[in-house]
Amino acid sequence: MDGNTHNLDRYGLEVLNSDECLSLLETRSVGRIAVFGFANPMIVPINYAVDHHTIVFRTGPGTKLWESATQDSRVAFEVDELDENEMEAWSVSLTGRAERITDQGVIARLEGLGLRNWVKGAEAFWFRVTPSIIEGRRLVQK
Amino acid sequence: MDGNTHNLDRYGLEVLNSDECLSLLETRSVGRIAVFGFANPMIVPINYAVDHHTIVFRTGPGTKLWESATQDSRVAFEVDELDENEMEAWSVSLTGRAERITDQGVIARLEGLGLRNWVKGAEAFWFRVTPSIIEGRRLVQK
Repeated sequence: MDGNTHNLDRYGLEVLNSDECLSLLETRSVGRIAVFGFANPMIVPINYAVDHHTIVFRTGPGTKLWESATQDSRVAFEVDELDENEMEAWSVSLTGRAERITDQGVIARLEGLGLRNWVKGAEAFWFRVTPSIIEGRRLVQK
Repeated sequence: MDGNTHNLDRYGLEVLNSDECLSLLETRSVGRIAVFGFANPMIVPINYAVDHHTIVFRTGPGTKLWESATQDSRVAFEVDELDENEMEAWSVSLTGRAERITDQGVIARLEGLGLRNWVKGAEAFWFRVTPSIIEGRRLVQK
């Protein structure tokens, strides 16, 4: 991506386009997801993969994420790389709705992605978030 | 904190108590915050400090965070340490309302905390989030 000219936002951060955002999402495997269908919204870490410009993840019954995702609720999702020593940073944020994946052919393909869940037992079902908005920023070194 | 006996949740994660959560928050300086007063909620990274069991941060006009915080809106905030190689992980999540800090004596004290904002120019005003709920989990090594 270097060599591209980026717009800067009012605080001097590079504004990443959606292709750059998706490319960065593919470099990581843990993000943070927030659900909103509750009196007390929470952000939690989650293992994810990128599949055809969407985010896929697994979760299971008993989690807030599960409760929200099965209600087809809005989620926000964020991935970043923040090096506190190097002062290098990028962040990609998106919002969309989580939908349960039920197509067994799709599930079989996703199982082959090698997505590893840190939380064992919470892998019962696959969900997909199709971004309605995706935004990214990168801190420019001075 | 080791040596304590922890409850485990249904997925085998250690459930951290609020004192442990606050202690862990003090070990980091970057978290992720989500705001909800918008059609399209987003999660963004933010520099923070812990002050008397609350989270303090700075932001400025023109950011979603600013717009939300100045409306005294709900926020969710999360801090974690996730080592993808070591398979060690903890996460602390909280929710509360962001309130602008206007007391000049308090601001003078907070300025002395050494909180460094990566995003220059976005440091105009101080805000405080007092947690109404704080939760933490730690992945137990197997």
